[in-house]
Amino acid sequence: MDFENKQRTEIASLGEFELINHLTKNFEIKNNSSVRGIGDDAAVIFNEDKKTLVSTDMLVEGVHFDLTYVPLKHLGYKSIVVNLSDIFAMNAVPQQVLVSIAISNRFSLEAIEELYSGMYLACEKYKIDLIGGDTTSSLSGLTLSITVIGSANSEKISYRNGAKANDLLCVSGDLGAAYIGLQVLEREKFVFQSNKNMQPDLEGKDYILQRQLKPEAREDVIKLLHQLDIIPSSMIDISDGLSSEILHICKQSNVGAQVYEEKLPIDQLTYNTALEFNIDPTTCALNGGEDYELLFTISMQEYEKIKSQALVTVIGHITSKESGCNLITKNGSLIELKAQGWNSFSK
Amino acid sequence: MDFENKQRTEIASLGEFELINHLTKNFEIKNNSSVRGIGDDAAVIFNEDKKTLVSTDMLVEGVHFDLTYVPLKHLGYKSIVVNLSDIFAMNAVPQQVLVSIAISNRFSLEAIEELYSGMYLACEKYKIDLIGGDTTSSLSGLTLSITVIGSANSEKISYRNGAKANDLLCVSGDLGAAYIGLQVLEREKFVFQSNKNMQPDLEGKDYILQRQLKPEAREDVIKLLHQLDIIPSSMIDISDGLSSEILHICKQSNVGAQVYEEKLPIDQLTYNTALEFNIDPTTCALNGGEDYELLFTISMQEYEKIKSQALVTVIGHITSKESGCNLITKNGSLIELKAQGWNSFSK
Repeated sequence: MDFENKQRTEIASLGEFELINHLTKNFEIKNNSSVRGIGDDAAVIFNEDKKTLVSTDMLVEGVHFDLTYVPLKHLGYKSIVVNLSDIFAMNAVPQQVLVSIAISNRFSLEAIEELYSGMYLACEKYKIDLIGGDTTSSLSGLTLSITVIGSANSEKISYRNGAKANDLLCVSGDLGAAYIGLQVLEREKFVFQSNKNMQPDLEGKDYILQRQLKPEAREDVIKLLHQLDIIPSSMIDISDGLSSEILHICKQSNVGAQVYEEKLPIDQLTYNTALEFNIDPTTCALNGGEDYELLFTISMQEYEKIKSQALVTVIGHITSKESGCNLITKNGSLIELKAQGWNSFSK
Repeated sequence: MDFENKQRTEIASLGEFELINHLTKNFEIKNNSSVRGIGDDAAVIFNEDKKTLVSTDMLVEGVHFDLTYVPLKHLGYKSIVVNLSDIFAMNAVPQQVLVSIAISNRFSLEAIEELYSGMYLACEKYKIDLIGGDTTSSLSGLTLSITVIGSANSEKISYRNGAKANDLLCVSGDLGAAYIGLQVLEREKFVFQSNKNMQPDLEGKDYILQRQLKPEAREDVIKLLHQLDIIPSSMIDISDGLSSEILHICKQSNVGAQVYEEKLPIDQLTYNTALEFNIDPTTCALNGGEDYELLFTISMQEYEKIKSQALVTVIGHITSKESGCNLITKNGSLIELKAQGWNSFSK
């Protein structure tokens, strides 16, 4: 973080209420369901006859993000987007967020403005209202806690436990890019720390870096499913890696799954960069994490509707529980899927 | 924190999902509005024709609490209660919480179980469902982020901006006890640090220590108002001190207020202990903070209903904005109210 050439205003020079007003003054209410936003003991929401969906995530500096290569504006954007992804994963529409931050005196007001400018961009893009939160000091580092709220008609909500044998297993976009983007950033950080005169070599890596630093939530997929009149029998977003998420759906739906290695959607740049790092591209796709793509199941009858959609790939199908959860490799052998997803406690 | 004689299980020995299951397995769903709890991408709530209210708070070790004298079980209890207080302050009923924690490896599983056992007690007492959250590691210390959700009929919600000139200004319970309780705890911590053989001298201080360590949220006051058929024209909970909260109501309602020093409800133990510390008891009541009492305004016509209620004291009335916000002292002089409430950034 290099703010040395910029103005530095100490957070402590503002009171807490002044700080909140300053950071949130540009955010506008866009949804009718947001009855009351920031400024009272609680925000007020009215979703009429729809269900209300709520999800929350905590992001800790040094555990979930590294400010040596993550710009604060990108962090702000990503922190909102990854929460929205959880609401889309219920086949629902996110509409409100509450943002809490704990910040040490290492951060200037200008730094926190950068963070909020990224959140603002995400809220504008996805039409989200910032309706509350909390702002406090911390003894060290930056911690973000975001709560997102959405709504959906009851019959449209896709849970994790609705997958049935013979359902098709589908995934949006492509997999493994965010993970391999992180490897590139970590490599360049290491090179830079060894020799401060080295310039980072990020040329040609735009797509995978963007997937790591500025991911998007798959609102487009939810809209497509709506247009195609498909309600997934189960759905989850891919934050901890495809394998881990398939196992969640299978465990909660009491079923098994068969996934075909040759069907896994992997971008060419992800593929080539994985080989550069001597990592199997399939491993990136299965265990990489932070893809924020949607994994969902649909009944076989929907296949005709979805087969020509570029946004979605059918990667396998649901089986009985007894068959277990397996990958069929390109050479035809069968490997049991294991959750090797990210776990902050084992780092 | 002394867990040296107890079993110590490392958090890292459990996976994240196993940890969440372990910590939350005793929590049961009690409200029909909680359609889906922990275990999916988002929780699902259905409040039918009622409005949904949401509030969130972040608590940081070393800033908001000191584990040298706050037992983890009390911290868990208090962290839930202070959030419920925000929903009661809207004249609404809290029903769900989401709990996120970031914990360093200083904390054993047994320590975190203590924290959750306090949360469990609060959820049982106030009939609250734990429906989600996040669990992650931190590089140092403990951070809690709690989101609480409630519901209310539209016409019953009390905002901060509805106070009118001539309304009566009312407060529940008594003021300043939590603040003076904290002074006692800080004094004993200081004594203990100077001489580790000293036993803390907390005798006879039960009430003010309980007000600091194990506060309650004023559900009883909300029920009383409902029974009396009173909807406050404005309401706020007293977390940062009476003066600060009166100023919030006055600013948002575009009015002034007159408060009578002789009417301020101060418990005898608070009064005596304040004098022991050479602090003016009135200062404790005005600026102490963490009372979690309710401050509200009602129309003069409601006076007959409320005057004999032991839970509530009329401490003054609302005036025109031009008159400002003032305290009338016991000797009849007029002092402008100032917000000297707690600000984490100025510590």
